[in-house]
Amino acid sequence: MIVERLPGRVTIYEVGPRDGLQNESRMVPTADKISFINQLARTGLSHVEITSFVNPRWIPQLADAVDVARGVERHPGVTFSALVPNRKGLESAVEGGMKEIAIFLSASETHNKKNVNKTIAETISAFEEVIEPARAQGIRVRAYVSTVFGCPYEGPVDPRRVAGLVTTLLGMNVFQVSLGDTIGVANPAQVERVLEIVLADVPAKDLAIHFHDTRGTALANCLVGIMMGVTTIDAAVGGLGGCPYAPGASGNLATEDVVAMLDAMGVETGVDLDKLVECSQAIAALVGHDLPSKYMKAHLGARARAACQGKS
Amino acid sequence: MIVERLPGRVTIYEVGPRDGLQNESRMVPTADKISFINQLARTGLSHVEITSFVNPRWIPQLADAVDVARGVERHPGVTFSALVPNRKGLESAVEGGMKEIAIFLSASETHNKKNVNKTIAETISAFEEVIEPARAQGIRVRAYVSTVFGCPYEGPVDPRRVAGLVTTLLGMNVFQVSLGDTIGVANPAQVERVLEIVLADVPAKDLAIHFHDTRGTALANCLVGIMMGVTTIDAAVGGLGGCPYAPGASGNLATEDVVAMLDAMGVETGVDLDKLVECSQAIAALVGHDLPSKYMKAHLGARARAACQGKS
Repeated sequence: MIVERLPGRVTIYEVGPRDGLQNESRMVPTADKISFINQLARTGLSHVEITSFVNPRWIPQLADAVDVARGVERHPGVTFSALVPNRKGLESAVEGGMKEIAIFLSASETHNKKNVNKTIAETISAFEEVIEPARAQGIRVRAYVSTVFGCPYEGPVDPRRVAGLVTTLLGMNVFQVSLGDTIGVANPAQVERVLEIVLADVPAKDLAIHFHDTRGTALANCLVGIMMGVTTIDAAVGGLGGCPYAPGASGNLATEDVVAMLDAMGVETGVDLDKLVECSQAIAALVGHDLPSKYMKAHLGARARAACQGKS
Repeated sequence: MIVERLPGRVTIYEVGPRDGLQNESRMVPTADKISFINQLARTGLSHVEITSFVNPRWIPQLADAVDVARGVERHPGVTFSALVPNRKGLESAVEGGMKEIAIFLSASETHNKKNVNKTIAETISAFEEVIEPARAQGIRVRAYVSTVFGCPYEGPVDPRRVAGLVTTLLGMNVFQVSLGDTIGVANPAQVERVLEIVLADVPAKDLAIHFHDTRGTALANCLVGIMMGVTTIDAAVGGLGGCPYAPGASGNLATEDVVAMLDAMGVETGVDLDKLVECSQAIAALVGHDLPSKYMKAHLGARARAACQGKS
């Protein structure tokens, strides 16, 4: 039932430097961001989303996007990506030397309007001035659909609307669409229902899943996602990205939690867990608070016990 | 695949007052334990494990077992249970007015020896002086098998050994065997493999699953467990029961996390989530530290936001 549906390999798409750090009240200094991203690029991760080229008035925490993009070491085998909302953002991304970017919209009108001040139709229309110019310069384009599993303003979201958006985006030459559970309300049965509908129209390789662990269900949701054939999972080291309104509340699915679960089930990710936890420790020190990853705490606890027993 | 395998109803077996509080460095005062258990009994939970009648030298935190058992209010529809290691413990449980008890052993010899200072065979033999005397007094007996998914001393555990122990225990007139992931190392694929082997010999209704959330996989493991037909899940409010060696590390699966996931999937538990979170808040104040439940944090964060907006 489960074991025979597991893929041999899953690609982890690390979003901590962007989806994590954009939610921190404290801005991490540019040099520290660059060190953090360089450290992530040495863990075996093949994809790291490093920043967002949005207007600094919207997300001041990532106002140093061009400097970060220019400052990070390029590694063969590691693709860096960044969010790009419009033509101006694309120019900055090119200036930063990006070879991959991501565009974004919401599956619910109200969230989309509040997020980018456009209707969904206007947002899709505006993608035209980003996608083809990017591709003409050899830049690959990914897309995020937010609020796929629920909207903070509208509540439930029709999976058929999601499927329509995914088909539209892939038709516009986006190479992959990541389905986002922006507010962390997805449950495993719902993941199955939504993916069944979306996968009726598009191949699983063109999808990624992006869960927030607000209610602790992100790993269970990922399990269903990979059983349904999706093999790209977005995650953030340490579980960076908690909501500023709820101190201690969980943010993104923690990269080490999903890598540890996949490792244990014999699904390869190519990522070194020890090195990942070192990245989480480094960024926890920089943001100045504990991170929610459970694997991280178990790992550090085990290391502390071993040290007590003189074994480490 | 998933939806059609979900049961209509799952029974939650709350173990916080025992498996949670036995791991706290601070002993919760007897009167506060009693209030906490009384509060749990008003949430809609049908089963609450309230204490352990072990030698107070082993677990001083639960030295007040008889007073707790005598002090809690009995409710129709709520069964209280308690751990009983031996004949002496049974006498105390009877003194405390218990109508259900639980015996326990490990699936791995080293853990069993360290836990109860007996071999597994000796432990089973000693059960004879507890099970039948208890049943003769109208007391139902449950059993725990610990280290089912991994032993901290021996590592992997053979599922056939687990299946053998389950069959033996059920043959001794235990009404249910709870399979414990004592150190929180189980993964979903392993849960499927172990349950396939155990369920070849015994019906699913005679089993419960008991996961610790040390690595964040407890909900994913529960999802597999219920898909395999098991309909009793052990959990502790707030995720009480973290390891004293790893500050902040996760303990038992948090009751509100599993109830919230089941609710969202349309699986009934009969438990009121708001009331559960109130119990978690109460016990967090008594133990003097944050609890790891993610649902609890999301719920309290949402309430705080609503209050800010004058909506609550």
